[in-house]
Amino acid sequence: MAQQRDLERTREKILAAATVEFAAHGFAGARVDAIARRARVNKQMLYYCFGAKRELYHEILRRKFAERTAFLDSLPATVEEALLHIFDKSTDDLDFVRMLEWEALDSSSPTKTVAAEERRALFSKAMKKFGAAQRAGAIAADVDVRHLFISFIACAVFPLAFPQMMRLVTGLEPSDPRFRRSRREFLSWLGRKLGSATGHADRRASANGNRRIGHQAGELR
Amino acid sequence: MAQQRDLERTREKILAAATVEFAAHGFAGARVDAIARRARVNKQMLYYCFGAKRELYHEILRRKFAERTAFLDSLPATVEEALLHIFDKSTDDLDFVRMLEWEALDSSSPTKTVAAEERRALFSKAMKKFGAAQRAGAIAADVDVRHLFISFIACAVFPLAFPQMMRLVTGLEPSDPRFRRSRREFLSWLGRKLGSATGHADRRASANGNRRIGHQAGELR
Repeated sequence: MAQQRDLERTREKILAAATVEFAAHGFAGARVDAIARRARVNKQMLYYCFGAKRELYHEILRRKFAERTAFLDSLPATVEEALLHIFDKSTDDLDFVRMLEWEALDSSSPTKTVAAEERRALFSKAMKKFGAAQRAGAIAADVDVRHLFISFIACAVFPLAFPQMMRLVTGLEPSDPRFRRSRREFLSWLGRKLGSATGHADRRASANGNRRIGHQAGELR
Repeated sequence: MAQQRDLERTREKILAAATVEFAAHGFAGARVDAIARRARVNKQMLYYCFGAKRELYHEILRRKFAERTAFLDSLPATVEEALLHIFDKSTDDLDFVRMLEWEALDSSSPTKTVAAEERRALFSKAMKKFGAAQRAGAIAADVDVRHLFISFIACAVFPLAFPQMMRLVTGLEPSDPRFRRSRREFLSWLGRKLGSATGHADRRASANGNRRIGHQAGELR
């Protein structure tokens, strides 16, 4: 029992160290030596726990995507709050953003997808939620929800993926609390603009000074 | 004269080859050998024209940013068309997107900025255009135009920067004409949603079946 628990703890330490290494250098640039050193385990232990570097990489991405799929359960009911929630979640996991950025640049094998099953599950659940919100009237009937989904992620993740542009435009790192605050304010504005299907709920909401939109008509659920 | 022209032509060939190499492998991964081979010049000629690899890299980014600054002159008058214009321009220069992505991941020296002057000129001109549009009422008075600018770029560039997500969500490469078509449709929708300050112009426009918004009140110029 205790041995099993120790092994589990060692695996978690290795996964955490590998995430930092893959985020810093990508899959190709990451070194097993560096991961073992950071996790304070020897390389034999690392290979015993995960086999090759590729398996370790796959396991991390599988977990990250599964975590995101579970995260969709906590997605708030309004478009405005959903956008903020996605932004907060992304900002809290810069390593994941960087891993996907490395993956995008790795042209060695564009057709092979790591963690394909977990990605499909995430996308399928997201589309169910967006589709239900659209049928309920919280999202405009005339918009392609796939592109709306892409754009929610884009507005949340782009600043983290291109910090050099944020430095230029705002003088701040995207991790700076002042940047986060001003970005959240903007996303609130954007969410209010995009939240209602026909604009009726929107107008009523602004008339009421009520920033939750579409809560009568329908919600992301 | 003829010699000068030949040298100019050689420089252009080297710049084109280097752009492909930097886009594929980033600054650190790019090899001068490969650039020279692709440009069909010998390495001595490359060094004669540009000095070190770093100077070649700087020259490419300087040109790309200056080109974008000039491009702002052709930005259409409505938010909807401006979004489409930015998307088309970005889609036509995937190499530039990838170079910026590599730059984002290069943590070796985050404070040193390449082509700083050209970047500042681009940003300053963009803010002038967005600010004028906001004062004229084409952009909402209560929005931070810096974040609106970031988000326009995000909605245009994100699909190109993360092709693996586009494959998953749409089954298509972001360069596929069918992807471009559906993305442009979405960006039209988004532009119409974001184009007016108070929603008055928006409502009037939809009542008229007129998709150009804010053209009475003000334009991006």
